[in-house]
Amino acid sequence: MTGTVRRAVVLLSGGLDSATTLAIARTEGFEAHALTFRYGQRHEAELRAAAEVAAALGATSQREVVVDLGQVGGSALTADIPVPKHRSAADIGEGIPVTYVPARNTIFLAFALAWCEVLGARDIFIGVNALDYSGYPDCRPEFIAAFERMASLATRAGLEGNGIVIHAPLIHLSKADIIRRGQSLGVDFGLTHSCYDPAPNGLACGACDACLLRARGFREAGVPDPTRYVEGLPT
Amino acid sequence: MTGTVRRAVVLLSGGLDSATTLAIARTEGFEAHALTFRYGQRHEAELRAAAEVAAALGATSQREVVVDLGQVGGSALTADIPVPKHRSAADIGEGIPVTYVPARNTIFLAFALAWCEVLGARDIFIGVNALDYSGYPDCRPEFIAAFERMASLATRAGLEGNGIVIHAPLIHLSKADIIRRGQSLGVDFGLTHSCYDPAPNGLACGACDACLLRARGFREAGVPDPTRYVEGLPT
Repeated sequence: MTGTVRRAVVLLSGGLDSATTLAIARTEGFEAHALTFRYGQRHEAELRAAAEVAAALGATSQREVVVDLGQVGGSALTADIPVPKHRSAADIGEGIPVTYVPARNTIFLAFALAWCEVLGARDIFIGVNALDYSGYPDCRPEFIAAFERMASLATRAGLEGNGIVIHAPLIHLSKADIIRRGQSLGVDFGLTHSCYDPAPNGLACGACDACLLRARGFREAGVPDPTRYVEGLPT
Repeated sequence: MTGTVRRAVVLLSGGLDSATTLAIARTEGFEAHALTFRYGQRHEAELRAAAEVAAALGATSQREVVVDLGQVGGSALTADIPVPKHRSAADIGEGIPVTYVPARNTIFLAFALAWCEVLGARDIFIGVNALDYSGYPDCRPEFIAAFERMASLATRAGLEGNGIVIHAPLIHLSKADIIRRGQSLGVDFGLTHSCYDPAPNGLACGACDACLLRARGFREAGVPDPTRYVEGLPT
């Protein structure tokens, strides 16, 4: 790392959470290096969205890494298990849903850590949040804190006494809060993609957990929802 | 997990450390599921060795996962950086060598954790050791302890109050101790492969750090070295 530029690795999925997280990293003065995973997800729409978001928000670089989580299996997002659909956000169940990908955030953060070492960076941004993520264990603050401690011990930086910092600026925000924050930072949510199961033309299904939580977030934030759904706005 | 069978995921590289670790897991009564990474290493010899070791030591399954660490770069083991050669183990320098792969053990353990969740297992075995690994930060006991804590928070098992256990049974052993332990458990070291830079015919170079530490280990253990080197036993 040269001079006073602070480099950070920003996990960027193409959804609105990670887009807002990238905007926050930029606002805080970081030179942002976006990291996007081709992890065996069933569609390309979010990968296209990630590239557009990275460019729009001034990331210094974007790297797409192939990590096929389908080799391990166990999730509706990477294996041949149907994505659950609901009529509204209120119908989403308790507990860990089948869309949970085992150890996904652990694996993604591990790659971010590797890239930090190569870049000489010490900061990682991740857009997890504990409220709207319907029960994923690896979206909790205590997980992030434990990863940060582990990461500092895992690396050259740790040996030299410089810890790794995991920034999770959305962790205590609701989806509506995130949307308000992103809007205030100029995020173009029309570029972002959240749907787990889009139509072949890329339109959002409007019925998966991700669509329903996103649509409810826009309603609660009082921000117009730019998402293009197959059958109009979900309730 | 059914009945009294305890399943474990065992990281198996094809080297003598992970072979001995697999033998220990079996001796402790675990049903062993071996996990081997095709991570962009420059040769196939260790992948062939891993398959032979898994079969010889009674692993219930072996899975080879493709995770191209060369996408991140930064190491002589995956990028186009020469592997350093020395005349003897005494010449190996201090500090982190260029053969260090950034965050490799973090990434490998993260995949092991994902596979644990799919298998319903809670135990992971890894053959790291802190003495002979010439300065890799992610081979230290404090790293393993921190990963274990993080892993327990990252997973379904952790949410349900059942922690993940990372077994690193070699961590305080010297290479000679590991060889003695493996020999006592019936490990056929002739099947294992350690060299970072083997000849095209698979013979060990005899001059990289891995060869020199291995050869010294056999000498110190007083165990015949079955390794086939390009130019005879290194000193």
